[in-house]
Amino acid sequence: MDQATFRSELAQQLRVDSVRASTAAGSGHPTSSMSAADLMAVLLDGHLRLDFDRPDNPANDHLIFSKGHASPLLYSAFKAVGAVEDDELLTFREFGSKLEGHPTPILPWVDVATGSLGQGLPIGVGLALAGKRLDRLPYRVWVLCGDSEMAEGSVWEALEHAGHQQLDNLIALIDVNRLGQTGPTMHGWDLSAYAARAQAAGWRTIEIDGHDLEQIESAYSDAEMSDGRPVAILARTEKGKGVSEVSDKLGFHGKPLAHAEEAIEELGGQRDLRVKTAKPEGDAVPHVFDTGSGGLPAFDEGTELATRKAYGQALAALGDRRGDVVALDGEVSNSTFSELFRDSHSDRYFEMYIAEQQMVAAAVGMQVRGWCAFASTFAAFLSRAYDFVRMAAISRADLRLMGSHAGVAIGEDGPSQMALEDLAAFRAVHGSTVLYPCDANQTVQLVAAMADLSGISYLRTSRGAMPVIYPPDEEFPVGGSKVVRNGSHVTLVGAGVTLHEALKAADQLASEGIEARVIDLYSIKPVDTETLRRAADETAGLVTAEDHWPEGGLGEAVLSALADRPAPVRKLAVQALPGSGKPAELLGQARIDAAAIAEKARELVSS
Amino acid sequence: MDQATFRSELAQQLRVDSVRASTAAGSGHPTSSMSAADLMAVLLDGHLRLDFDRPDNPANDHLIFSKGHASPLLYSAFKAVGAVEDDELLTFREFGSKLEGHPTPILPWVDVATGSLGQGLPIGVGLALAGKRLDRLPYRVWVLCGDSEMAEGSVWEALEHAGHQQLDNLIALIDVNRLGQTGPTMHGWDLSAYAARAQAAGWRTIEIDGHDLEQIESAYSDAEMSDGRPVAILARTEKGKGVSEVSDKLGFHGKPLAHAEEAIEELGGQRDLRVKTAKPEGDAVPHVFDTGSGGLPAFDEGTELATRKAYGQALAALGDRRGDVVALDGEVSNSTFSELFRDSHSDRYFEMYIAEQQMVAAAVGMQVRGWCAFASTFAAFLSRAYDFVRMAAISRADLRLMGSHAGVAIGEDGPSQMALEDLAAFRAVHGSTVLYPCDANQTVQLVAAMADLSGISYLRTSRGAMPVIYPPDEEFPVGGSKVVRNGSHVTLVGAGVTLHEALKAADQLASEGIEARVIDLYSIKPVDTETLRRAADETAGLVTAEDHWPEGGLGEAVLSALADRPAPVRKLAVQALPGSGKPAELLGQARIDAAAIAEKARELVSS
Repeated sequence: MDQATFRSELAQQLRVDSVRASTAAGSGHPTSSMSAADLMAVLLDGHLRLDFDRPDNPANDHLIFSKGHASPLLYSAFKAVGAVEDDELLTFREFGSKLEGHPTPILPWVDVATGSLGQGLPIGVGLALAGKRLDRLPYRVWVLCGDSEMAEGSVWEALEHAGHQQLDNLIALIDVNRLGQTGPTMHGWDLSAYAARAQAAGWRTIEIDGHDLEQIESAYSDAEMSDGRPVAILARTEKGKGVSEVSDKLGFHGKPLAHAEEAIEELGGQRDLRVKTAKPEGDAVPHVFDTGSGGLPAFDEGTELATRKAYGQALAALGDRRGDVVALDGEVSNSTFSELFRDSHSDRYFEMYIAEQQMVAAAVGMQVRGWCAFASTFAAFLSRAYDFVRMAAISRADLRLMGSHAGVAIGEDGPSQMALEDLAAFRAVHGSTVLYPCDANQTVQLVAAMADLSGISYLRTSRGAMPVIYPPDEEFPVGGSKVVRNGSHVTLVGAGVTLHEALKAADQLASEGIEARVIDLYSIKPVDTETLRRAADETAGLVTAEDHWPEGGLGEAVLSALADRPAPVRKLAVQALPGSGKPAELLGQARIDAAAIAEKARELVSS
Repeated sequence: MDQATFRSELAQQLRVDSVRASTAAGSGHPTSSMSAADLMAVLLDGHLRLDFDRPDNPANDHLIFSKGHASPLLYSAFKAVGAVEDDELLTFREFGSKLEGHPTPILPWVDVATGSLGQGLPIGVGLALAGKRLDRLPYRVWVLCGDSEMAEGSVWEALEHAGHQQLDNLIALIDVNRLGQTGPTMHGWDLSAYAARAQAAGWRTIEIDGHDLEQIESAYSDAEMSDGRPVAILARTEKGKGVSEVSDKLGFHGKPLAHAEEAIEELGGQRDLRVKTAKPEGDAVPHVFDTGSGGLPAFDEGTELATRKAYGQALAALGDRRGDVVALDGEVSNSTFSELFRDSHSDRYFEMYIAEQQMVAAAVGMQVRGWCAFASTFAAFLSRAYDFVRMAAISRADLRLMGSHAGVAIGEDGPSQMALEDLAAFRAVHGSTVLYPCDANQTVQLVAAMADLSGISYLRTSRGAMPVIYPPDEEFPVGGSKVVRNGSHVTLVGAGVTLHEALKAADQLASEGIEARVIDLYSIKPVDTETLRRAADETAGLVTAEDHWPEGGLGEAVLSALADRPAPVRKLAVQALPGSGKPAELLGQARIDAAAIAEKARELVSS
């Protein structure tokens, strides 16, 4: 079979198998798969340099299906390269199958989960950045995008960033099949509309007929000749290509074909071709940065420092000790103090500008290649990337996030800058770790611990200086807590700024003869259930105080820990919408300060 | 004083007052204010048609400071038009002052809160859409954007949407001062870089020297001549313009000037000019759509329907009854069934394509003008707009959100499409209402109730059909619950799909002689504390079951309600990352099905 025939047959096989898999499943997206089958056939046959037998080869190209609903096509491609058997292909979407409705890294050839549109390209930017600046390897990052998802702002963040960073190792294949889920896209088949946008962002664009195998071949060859610009291949395609009943017609999104047998016949019947992808050249070893042995910063008890500043110092020190640590920031590095890392490790620092989605996505891309990525911005603005964090958990990504400027304690800047929902949001991420230090030494230890954590970890830091209350050698295991003051009458639970308020409240209560136990709940998730239960057993009840809305934060973490062994809990949290003011004024107004804590403690003791 | 002199003096006054306000506050962003002072002076003097004495005049132009940190400039402008006294200006950022660190609608001339960058323009798109298609009034929407925030994908969603919708009533003033918080922006003073991007999206662009009053005048006059395209005025400016110590220099972002007195002197000293803005022509009355009197849909008990479908039917019926109801969707209207509204009220339906940030922002813009906006997409994808929802609460916006496809019960599509964090995320929004119906009639009543709610309300709906268990005339007050089965041994609490599992569990338990009370907690926030406490008093304990991660959802809402009156609670929720499968398989695997609920109930009864 000559190459043209082979590719044509392979493309039809990918279509047939997409139909077969979705028909077997009784759901899925065959028509969205069929539009991109020719693009995939040519990619597999000669262009993608990916050793499917060694998915961990650092030199492998990366392939991301940003249009994750085209999973039937991806899995059919996995069958065509011999990575998945036909039997397994037909388990698509079954309980227990690795061939999930949308791709996840449960399969070794899938880098990241997709299915929330507009995420693949920004993650691809992260991988391309890793290739250029961290791994320093010539792998390419191929991202298959749908045209509908070009409406997502995150895609434009990626276009902008890739253009600015001249990522010519990034190739976006835009499958312009003109039809979305419910109707035509904004631009239909107007390839020039997409081209103008991408070119404005500094991309090279190639417009082709996405069903013309020669044009595809020519576009790929052209794209592979790097000229300092990322490449967007704009392919005019037909949704459902090859099956007249559905081709280029509305109403067939996300449905198995009604007449699968006839469709397979129209596509020329079942085939069983195998294609061998190109292997990357050599056994490239990823670049490793020098690893030193410096100590971690240490602070004297009684001095004052903002935990965000301790974060920056800790991260810079961690960068000395570990060559795999990288940092990203959303153009606020002088607020998050990630600038301390930037200044000492500029080769491993990434300025992501004010594009939090791209920032988190880039970190996800980098951790695919094993880099230990810390991304930071104001905690309030991490909410901008919440869907990316949610998906990162499904990607089984190891991702470290730092959010500064927590709560009303930031003071004058007002509510737009106050994170008051971040604990709830990050607790509700699968497998996450949520940490909230109250002093500089604790911050340092937690930052160091984060580097070794798997999954999504989140560190909440504060704007204002707080006294150092722990010695530098104190240990803070994730999932632990500290009983910073013993007492048997009542328990006060705080973290961050409210831990200091709880200590003040304990002083006040002590002067009244009430002995309060104070627990520093620096690990909000996982939470130290044992210490909390002991407090519930040994004291009249617990007062929780948090610089956060009442829902989903520290107080509810405590309540969940005590669900099996209930005890009276008085939950203090921010109830009313704050304005501007001095931190102490706002803590007082929110009734999460020492006075409010002491008042609730007295209620518990006397009840 | 001739006009040129007046404008020049006015601009200097705005600068001086920005310096004075931030100096009085000891914080704030004077340099970011000074770059745009000339743009504002000319806007106030002859172009902005806004009656400050009647901020509720429907015909008023709208002015949004997307770069909300330039609040000193905005408040100085309010002083210049006589809306704010000089004394009040100097209360900037003080506790209790309406002049907060970033603008909020606590001031009647501020439509929406800003301060999270990249939100003003997409909200402006919503207002411009309202002007064109709902109010049908010729007001203009002026949005002052920073250049740093152009990196936010949400800005590009806005550019894309405004171009596509030909919103020539929208004028973006881009203050290109080239300096971000920590360093230069991506494009510096390259106005053509921005122009190319905006033009590609269908905008008209005008490039000017942002300190040349004649060029500004000419640009505004030009922009006011509508030609079917939105207009971006790209103004090259200097950050800190007018004060040599800081002008066009890095290191002065977000700080009051070190030498304010000298700066004021360099700016020509304090002035006390007043400017009269143009009033809009006439007393325009906003368009009101016909309001009929149709009934709400009703469903027979025992039939089966997905709550998402009931949503669509209810919304369409609500649209018949109320001319102020509008609907927006993120290109999934055949999944959320907002297509039923679209089909019956196409003039009030807005297709926002796959751009969830723009969708929520547009709804926020429309509600500024009093429209009762419902926005819908998959619940998982609302997480994309979480920062917009957070900010909408600070904007005191009335916003109705519907998220479909909740939890593992969606089945085959897999985790990327499963909302499992939405209850936590939306509970942790200030003043929010979180509703989660289990049948079609309940859904209808809750949708109708949402139309009258203030603040952010969120309705969680399910993909699969569920039996109708309530009669059509049943009432479901927000903040209430339903005891759907009485029993004194143990209490089962569910909502949505788990309510049905709880009913099945109660059947099983009954056959074993255990009388279970079943509570339908359709109002997750506010929650029916009284009914829950009564259950805690009258039964051995509560089993909660939710199709959600364990954090921040139904279970913790129950625990919070019982914090003062603790009772044993067994919280069932999704613990492990799900894959694909049939809904029943996934409910079983997650141990939130009837069997798991019954097992926990037995434990409680026997303990």
